[in-house]
Amino acid sequence: MSATEPLLGILGGMGPQAGLDLAHKLITSTRAENDQDHVPFVLFSLPGPVADRTEYLLGDSATNPAYAIADQLESMSGLGVTVAVIACNTAHAAPIFEVILELLREKQVDLPLLHLVDETIARLGHDFPAINRVGVLGTRGAYQSRLYEQALEKAGYETVLPEPDIREQMVHAAIYDSRFGIKATAGKVSAKSRELMRLAISHVGERGAEVVILGCTELPLAVAAPIVEGIPVLDPTQIIAERITRIFRPGRPVG
Amino acid sequence: MSATEPLLGILGGMGPQAGLDLAHKLITSTRAENDQDHVPFVLFSLPGPVADRTEYLLGDSATNPAYAIADQLESMSGLGVTVAVIACNTAHAAPIFEVILELLREKQVDLPLLHLVDETIARLGHDFPAINRVGVLGTRGAYQSRLYEQALEKAGYETVLPEPDIREQMVHAAIYDSRFGIKATAGKVSAKSRELMRLAISHVGERGAEVVILGCTELPLAVAAPIVEGIPVLDPTQIIAERITRIFRPGRPVG
Repeated sequence: MSATEPLLGILGGMGPQAGLDLAHKLITSTRAENDQDHVPFVLFSLPGPVADRTEYLLGDSATNPAYAIADQLESMSGLGVTVAVIACNTAHAAPIFEVILELLREKQVDLPLLHLVDETIARLGHDFPAINRVGVLGTRGAYQSRLYEQALEKAGYETVLPEPDIREQMVHAAIYDSRFGIKATAGKVSAKSRELMRLAISHVGERGAEVVILGCTELPLAVAAPIVEGIPVLDPTQIIAERITRIFRPGRPVG
Repeated sequence: MSATEPLLGILGGMGPQAGLDLAHKLITSTRAENDQDHVPFVLFSLPGPVADRTEYLLGDSATNPAYAIADQLESMSGLGVTVAVIACNTAHAAPIFEVILELLREKQVDLPLLHLVDETIARLGHDFPAINRVGVLGTRGAYQSRLYEQALEKAGYETVLPEPDIREQMVHAAIYDSRFGIKATAGKVSAKSRELMRLAISHVGERGAEVVILGCTELPLAVAAPIVEGIPVLDPTQIIAERITRIFRPGRPVG
């Protein structure tokens, strides 16, 4: 395959449906008259070797998923990928993301990575210049590592988190529950997960959040509307998709 | 990336939304309790170098898309892909598909390809043992090359095609029209394309078709129901997705 043009790499599989959601949002964010107008990409969806990000951050698994992720990024680079994005918020937590960057340096792989969290914070400032209090919903691992909290703090925002029992029984369950969770019903999100997410958004709204970030790539699968219970919802997957379109096809953003 | 397990390659990009549709149907066809239960795959969506299949078959383009497709399959094989599928019915027409196989032999790339058309005919015999007359809707290129006609004939079926003006004004337009066609509105199929497909299915039904094959990977995007106007509709993308699940995850078909 000749690498004569910029090529995007989407590192998906965490879970598989979340990776596809990013590719789908990229396609719908690009105004195209034919196939060739679309951003060229390769999507890797190899969940087998990638240890669960949250389990690692909580100390429940000794394997840092950074190793498998860096291996896959190295393969992408070999294919001619010129910029990549990891379709998983939790993988951007420092104990994982910093190790990925270090491994790429060791392997001498020169592959720029777009940063899901940083791009989301940048967009927040652009779209909502007057707000202060930002709600964040995510996995246990993302909370533990203060992934969005630290980035929001640095940018001058106050973070509004759900109460611990809501976080466990609503957000974590919506993703991981073995009966109705998004990972267990991939592609067909349950009504239960959708309802739990509606309640969780409403809950952080009651605690003062002016906007809510869906800080796990699986959550947007269960939240279709841009405003829920009167609260604007920020979808990092949609934000990064629009950013990619502006990088690769500056004349072709939708809308 | 270590190739220690079977890995699927999906050659998409023809168009990009059709490739994603196959990946999505694969995920929803696999009963999974966690990310790792899903079939591992890489999806290539690089429409740039791949010449339009229909334009080549009609003689409107001198470039056989087989060359770019074989290059991409070679790259997949280098990544550790153990079996691949091309997410485009028209690319399975002999003037393209036979050249792909020849190029892979020349390159000494030993990569088995699943065959979208053959798998669809096999499934037809299994699900509808008593029928004779099979409607086929597809691109101009697929008709010109008699892609499904020959395969159906060999299997003892009679093919029912739409009349030429219906084929042009409904099926071809639903895919290629520059205002409302599926390729021009990727990800958000127009009501017009959906309505044209409903009328085209009804039309081949009136001509005697007992079932209808959606013989272009973009048509299922505009036809959501398994039965339209009382006629069962066969979606090759769904059929190949279920076949892949049975190959990779024999204990995990949905339903």
